[in-house]
Amino acid sequence: MTTRDDIQANREQQLVERVIRSFGSCADPRLRELMVSLVGHLHAFIRETRLTEREWAAAIDFLTRCGHITDDKRQEFILLSDVLGASMQTITVNDHAKADATEATVFGPFFVENAPGIPLGGNIAGPAAGEPCWVEGRVTDTGGTPLAGARVEVWEADEDGLYDVQYDDDHTAGRAHLFTDEHGHYCFWGVTPTPYPIPHDGPVGQLLEHTGRSPMRAAHLHFMVSHPGHRTLVTHIFVRGGSHLDTDTVFGVKPSLVKDFQRQPAGTPAPGDRVIDGTWTRARFDIVLTPDSSSAP
Amino acid sequence: MTTRDDIQANREQQLVERVIRSFGSCADPRLRELMVSLVGHLHAFIRETRLTEREWAAAIDFLTRCGHITDDKRQEFILLSDVLGASMQTITVNDHAKADATEATVFGPFFVENAPGIPLGGNIAGPAAGEPCWVEGRVTDTGGTPLAGARVEVWEADEDGLYDVQYDDDHTAGRAHLFTDEHGHYCFWGVTPTPYPIPHDGPVGQLLEHTGRSPMRAAHLHFMVSHPGHRTLVTHIFVRGGSHLDTDTVFGVKPSLVKDFQRQPAGTPAPGDRVIDGTWTRARFDIVLTPDSSSAP
Repeated sequence: MTTRDDIQANREQQLVERVIRSFGSCADPRLRELMVSLVGHLHAFIRETRLTEREWAAAIDFLTRCGHITDDKRQEFILLSDVLGASMQTITVNDHAKADATEATVFGPFFVENAPGIPLGGNIAGPAAGEPCWVEGRVTDTGGTPLAGARVEVWEADEDGLYDVQYDDDHTAGRAHLFTDEHGHYCFWGVTPTPYPIPHDGPVGQLLEHTGRSPMRAAHLHFMVSHPGHRTLVTHIFVRGGSHLDTDTVFGVKPSLVKDFQRQPAGTPAPGDRVIDGTWTRARFDIVLTPDSSSAP
Repeated sequence: MTTRDDIQANREQQLVERVIRSFGSCADPRLRELMVSLVGHLHAFIRETRLTEREWAAAIDFLTRCGHITDDKRQEFILLSDVLGASMQTITVNDHAKADATEATVFGPFFVENAPGIPLGGNIAGPAAGEPCWVEGRVTDTGGTPLAGARVEVWEADEDGLYDVQYDDDHTAGRAHLFTDEHGHYCFWGVTPTPYPIPHDGPVGQLLEHTGRSPMRAAHLHFMVSHPGHRTLVTHIFVRGGSHLDTDTVFGVKPSLVKDFQRQPAGTPAPGDRVIDGTWTRARFDIVLTPDSSSAP
């Protein structure tokens, strides 16, 4: 006997299948694969939750507001992807576990192309305020061979938790690139990272508020490290003992990326004979790049 | 023995669980349910497809472009939901199969509040060009009792496939509301519906093109019918024998909504003694509303 519930389930399933069939003429097999998976999960979400029309309309309105707040400097869809863990999951599936290789984490929305170059031991802070922080380490391949001339891009927020691009002027601060020496060594001055909220005055901030979540990220310093023949690594280091390590709102923290930022008493001699009135910190981050299989000969 | 693949699968699964746990403090149980289901499906999509970072970036760019083309008159996120069948699936799960009740279909983006009122037998076309079309029917409840004073909103495109709001001026055409008489009867003049493409000059149109899909909708006339104590019905009627019935790009066609639009030879006397030079069509659409359980005493 066919019940009304059977008829209903059949109507819903038939619709899913019609939508999937509509992508049957897609000439690009990868795009077809993506659309079929997307449609399957989107419809399963609607059917499982019995999404109401009012909830659907709220979702349309939410996406619209994300679109309207997004501009050259603000990317609400990346924030949305970040707080849903989608950015981190994408990073994770593309960063297959390998022995000893440094783990990747989220890129975030604050990278800027063509940040200034600095020499080894130079200072990325510019006008960014904060406690001075010395960072050093070595870039090697998975066999332990030092990688000379690796490009190290670093960027971070100032002590108020703001990146340069979040100010209304056009100044550059807290970002630079440098290159490893012949021993794969790099070092630079920056400022000690502090926790900060992701931009939460928009729809994603409202989502966090309505779901009882904090907008805070654990304190971190961004790295992007590239070298010919190796997979470009996008990652952060986090400050051990800092707040929000367990609740980082973009799920970026991995235990292997949490580092000691050792605070030095005022008066401690600093690298490069830098004269510092107060305290400063120092951290070490050794980086292991994996071979880029796609660039093999 | 733990393999690298096990480590990888574990990393991915741990991340899903962390994201789901992050919604554990959400005070609204329905919102928590929605977020947990959304996160589960979103992460499953990324893991199953092994979404690349380039594909992720393309998705962010796609959503951004949808947001930027959306304004008061253009709603790209609704179009996106429509072409993925998500709008129709939402309608379907909220329109549980009931004996004899008229089926619902998609709302679409072209409804306008406060369309003009017309008397029974009046004309909704205004300046909209097209072959005249007489539509009549009766609104009843599921027991067959006529519903007097039901509000019938109707809207449609002109013979060029454009709604009034798609023109640059502010004219009103092809839309009106009327009320059923004491026998539940309604009738009006409009224009014979013609197939038309959804707006396809934006990102959703590009998606359809890249996936080998047509942007065409089957010819249809929109209805929204409401009566106190009954669930408001949003639906269309489609022209039997028309093109795109099987490939309607928003998946709105249901067999029960396909109606005969009988073409009348030039010179056939028309209802209301209307004088028509050429051909015209007539269609009948009887509408059965279901009780609105939420408004029960």
